[in-house]
Amino acid sequence: MVSKSQIKFIKNLQQKKYRTEHKLFVVEGVKTVKELVKANIKPYAIYTTSSTVLEDENFKSELISTADLKKISALKTPNNILAVFHQPKEKEITPNNWVVAVDDVRDPGNLGTIIRLCDWFGITNLFCSNHTVDCYNPKTLQATMGSLARVNIVYGDLEAFLKSTKMPVYGAFMDGKNVYKESFTAENGVLVMGNEANGVSVTIENLVTKKISIPQFGAKTTESLNVATATAILLNEIRRGA
Amino acid sequence: MVSKSQIKFIKNLQQKKYRTEHKLFVVEGVKTVKELVKANIKPYAIYTTSSTVLEDENFKSELISTADLKKISALKTPNNILAVFHQPKEKEITPNNWVVAVDDVRDPGNLGTIIRLCDWFGITNLFCSNHTVDCYNPKTLQATMGSLARVNIVYGDLEAFLKSTKMPVYGAFMDGKNVYKESFTAENGVLVMGNEANGVSVTIENLVTKKISIPQFGAKTTESLNVATATAILLNEIRRGA
Repeated sequence: MVSKSQIKFIKNLQQKKYRTEHKLFVVEGVKTVKELVKANIKPYAIYTTSSTVLEDENFKSELISTADLKKISALKTPNNILAVFHQPKEKEITPNNWVVAVDDVRDPGNLGTIIRLCDWFGITNLFCSNHTVDCYNPKTLQATMGSLARVNIVYGDLEAFLKSTKMPVYGAFMDGKNVYKESFTAENGVLVMGNEANGVSVTIENLVTKKISIPQFGAKTTESLNVATATAILLNEIRRGA
Repeated sequence: MVSKSQIKFIKNLQQKKYRTEHKLFVVEGVKTVKELVKANIKPYAIYTTSSTVLEDENFKSELISTADLKKISALKTPNNILAVFHQPKEKEITPNNWVVAVDDVRDPGNLGTIIRLCDWFGITNLFCSNHTVDCYNPKTLQATMGSLARVNIVYGDLEAFLKSTKMPVYGAFMDGKNVYKESFTAENGVLVMGNEANGVSVTIENLVTKKISIPQFGAKTTESLNVATATAILLNEIRRGA
């Protein structure tokens, strides 16, 4: 049985301002819930319609009716399970590894893919400008899964961060230096990726010390690569060595 | 004024079977329509609610009311313009360049991103297994834009295609050879990318002559890369040279 006030509380968490206020977020679906629990993201409350859904897992869940799940779910067809998790605490960024910084990435799927890429390539810190989409947006979570637990995601003033860092600042531009000619020998650095429509903003561009580009092999009419696929290629370039 | 039979005809094109039968597809939104016209995709009919929408373009459009646009649109909030285009003809695949082959990719956004990547990296042929999502799906079109005109997309029996080709067949696997150690010296080849959930199917795996993998740098718990980002990295590896 889910009380009226619980229903309201959980529904409110569909909005970013409540998620930020309570430092919580909501996940639906067995696979992602299991992934997050396994990755040591702390559950706040877990609701299931069948006790067998999570039988192998070592945590408490509350059995509720399908009708109640419908009331708290954001999905048209709820998925047997809904969990509320504590947001992992933001940690200070240490300059002993590469950092990916996104300048107002707006598409939740793109941000989710970038988080998963950071995890794959062992990038432990992701800096998001204040106008970047919320990493606890359901569509972001769908793309990140457990990666959320292994990447430290910090929101803040990107300009101030870049001004304060001593690391070299790389940025992806259409007119930068051919990335194949760049040897990423530094043990650390910041890779700045821009917004989907406008790229890196002028203020941030002025703080980039090394502009890089991915060479284009097809017709020059192709407008640009999607920000998530460009991040994939550049992180691969950084990690593969010269 | 759009007639009842026209409305029915256009609405039917939201379904793959009608698109395939009539060799037509529907696009909404000024940017994509302009891109496709510019890329020489042949329009069948263009409907706009304002004659200024496409004033710079060199083709005929039919002026209709907002109410009529609503009747033919698949969107909740129609975008001032809807166009029906002829599907480009499938051309035979010639072995003078690399070919990307997808084995049952199901997500329309992933297929769209892969088409755009082919265009960026100068891959002129994309082979789609018969159960791959339709490349004229609206969500695919949203991700491809003009690239659709520059990449020859062929649907067919992937097993038969791989059996008949004389090109080396590479495939992306979790347990393949480190792609950084592979030197892509051949001037042609096929790169096979698998389905989102199951990867490359067993039948197709047996026809792959070189299994390759993208090294993982983070925690080994990261399950896999998304098929579109993996394609981005592998095409970059093929094109960058050793």
